[in-house]
Amino acid sequence: MHVTIDQAQKIINAARKEAEKTKTKMCIAVVDSGASLKAFHRMDDAWVGSIDIAIKKAKTAVFFGMPTGAIGQLSQPGGPLFGIEHSNDGLITFPGGLPIVDDEGVLVGAIGVSGSSVENDHKVAAAGVKVCGVSDLPEHPWRT
Amino acid sequence: MHVTIDQAQKIINAARKEAEKTKTKMCIAVVDSGASLKAFHRMDDAWVGSIDIAIKKAKTAVFFGMPTGAIGQLSQPGGPLFGIEHSNDGLITFPGGLPIVDDEGVLVGAIGVSGSSVENDHKVAAAGVKVCGVSDLPEHPWRT
Amino acid sequence: MHVTIDQAQKIINAARKEAEKTKTKMCIAVVDSGASLKAFHRMDDAWVGSIDIAIKKAKTAVFFGMPTGAIGQLSQPGGPLFGIEHSNDGLITFPGGLPIVDDEGVLVGAIGVSGSSVENDHKVAAAGVKVCGVSDLPEHPWRT
Amino acid sequence: MHVTIDQAQKIINAARKEAEKTKTKMCIAVVDSGASLKAFHRMDDAWVGSIDIAIKKAKTAVFFGMPTGAIGQLSQPGGPLFGIEHSNDGLITFPGGLPIVDDEGVLVGAIGVSGSSVENDHKVAAAGVKVCGVSDLPEHPWRT
Repeated sequence: MHVTIDQAQKIINAARKEAEKTKTKMCIAVVDSGASLKAFHRMDDAWVGSIDIAIKKAKTAVFFGMPTGAIGQLSQPGGPLFGIEHSNDGLITFPGGLPIVDDEGVLVGAIGVSGSSVENDHKVAAAGVKVCGVSDLPEHPWRT
Repeated sequence: MHVTIDQAQKIINAARKEAEKTKTKMCIAVVDSGASLKAFHRMDDAWVGSIDIAIKKAKTAVFFGMPTGAIGQLSQPGGPLFGIEHSNDGLITFPGGLPIVDDEGVLVGAIGVSGSSVENDHKVAAAGVKVCGVSDLPEHPWRT
Repeated sequence: MHVTIDQAQKIINAARKEAEKTKTKMCIAVVDSGASLKAFHRMDDAWVGSIDIAIKKAKTAVFFGMPTGAIGQLSQPGGPLFGIEHSNDGLITFPGGLPIVDDEGVLVGAIGVSGSSVENDHKVAAAGVKVCGVSDLPEHPWRT
Repeated sequence: MHVTIDQAQKIINAARKEAEKTKTKMCIAVVDSGASLKAFHRMDDAWVGSIDIAIKKAKTAVFFGMPTGAIGQLSQPGGPLFGIEHSNDGLITFPGGLPIVDDEGVLVGAIGVSGSSVENDHKVAAAGVKVCGVSDLPEHPWRT
């Protein structure tokens, strides 16, 4: 199951509204459950460097069905996943990427946000997810 | 000068309307005048392989300020630009990518569409451009 | 708005003069506000490995509108942006890359310098910026 | 032996003068005999897509010690080098890249020019080479 384009647009609109509330300029990406880009939105004056980061955050969140920040805690020096960022053409493992899980607990996609502090990026991503589902997956393995 | 996100959304909406009229499932990308992604929209059931093609078409059109199909006519075997597709991390040189030129003749970005025949891709791209400008650049060099 | 080629040459000349004063052999890159290469200069006997680093430093500085070293302070293990170097085909986040901001506070490009210690790289980059603007951006978001 | 930075600048200046005479907007790259970038110059309003093409033309010319157009004649469908563009991270094999050979017949680098028709690109490249050497290599194998 994949997030639909109508859902992706609602997600982006909600995220953008939150970005405006926090006075930030964000790149917002939505990918489907296969990690393929569904929709993307770059606000005027957002950092050009955030395009790739937003997309990579969304992909990373769907690759492993967890918030990007959770992976980042495991990929620190000495941690069990140190260096995982080298896989999959480059992961981004700090906050701002969240899985999108529907009412039945199915991972349908993910959102990635970049353009401000990681706290703001996360907040904007969470506002996007909320309109279409939650970010908590049932115990892995889950259905896709 | 760059296409704004508001313009990019209008461009995508117009392109999507045309796609629906032609009963096609399209990936639609808009880039700014520096070839950086501004907005992207993948209709439900569009080919996954068209994501990259739509983005590359938009980039190609802005890279050289001309329709992708015009480059493709020059890059055929025996033609003057044979093999140009190997540059810039991969160009797409068949129709479906069009520059977006504003009222003052400035290249502000480009649209790339992929998902059907090249005729349909081009038609949908042209419908997108029309809401914000034209595809004809004044004689190169132009202003950016 | 982009740095012009005349400005880029003045920037490189000033940076080179500073390099000669510090008896270093530098690679010096200038990119425009879209992170596209504008001008490049490799002094005789500069490290071949510094070519890519100088270009990546310039790109990194324009991607996020800040000195590369400022990003590097946030991307350390345990820091909020740990691993950001994996984005955008590779960032360089130690000193030597500086944004170029014009009189009106607009980010018009960036300079990247590599070839000696990071202190020297930074010093040479700063000497380049000084002829055409400053490195301090007004509070993000800025205009491009 | 490598082209020096002083020579590279003279080459670029001569190429730029020719570009102005032909009213074209060019990207001009000079690489050393190891195919590493020595100097680069993008005229205002030159195509963004020509940056990579100019650099790849210069590299291609030095990789094989011959004009890029000569390789392109061998890489056509059915030709002995069909597909060679896939090597070395992408070659450009149409005219505009020329080796730089010094007085003693040594290949010291190459120039690559992109931004107009291949005839103009070649003409501008040839004007650059002329100030520091010739484009004709002695019979391969040659000295580097």
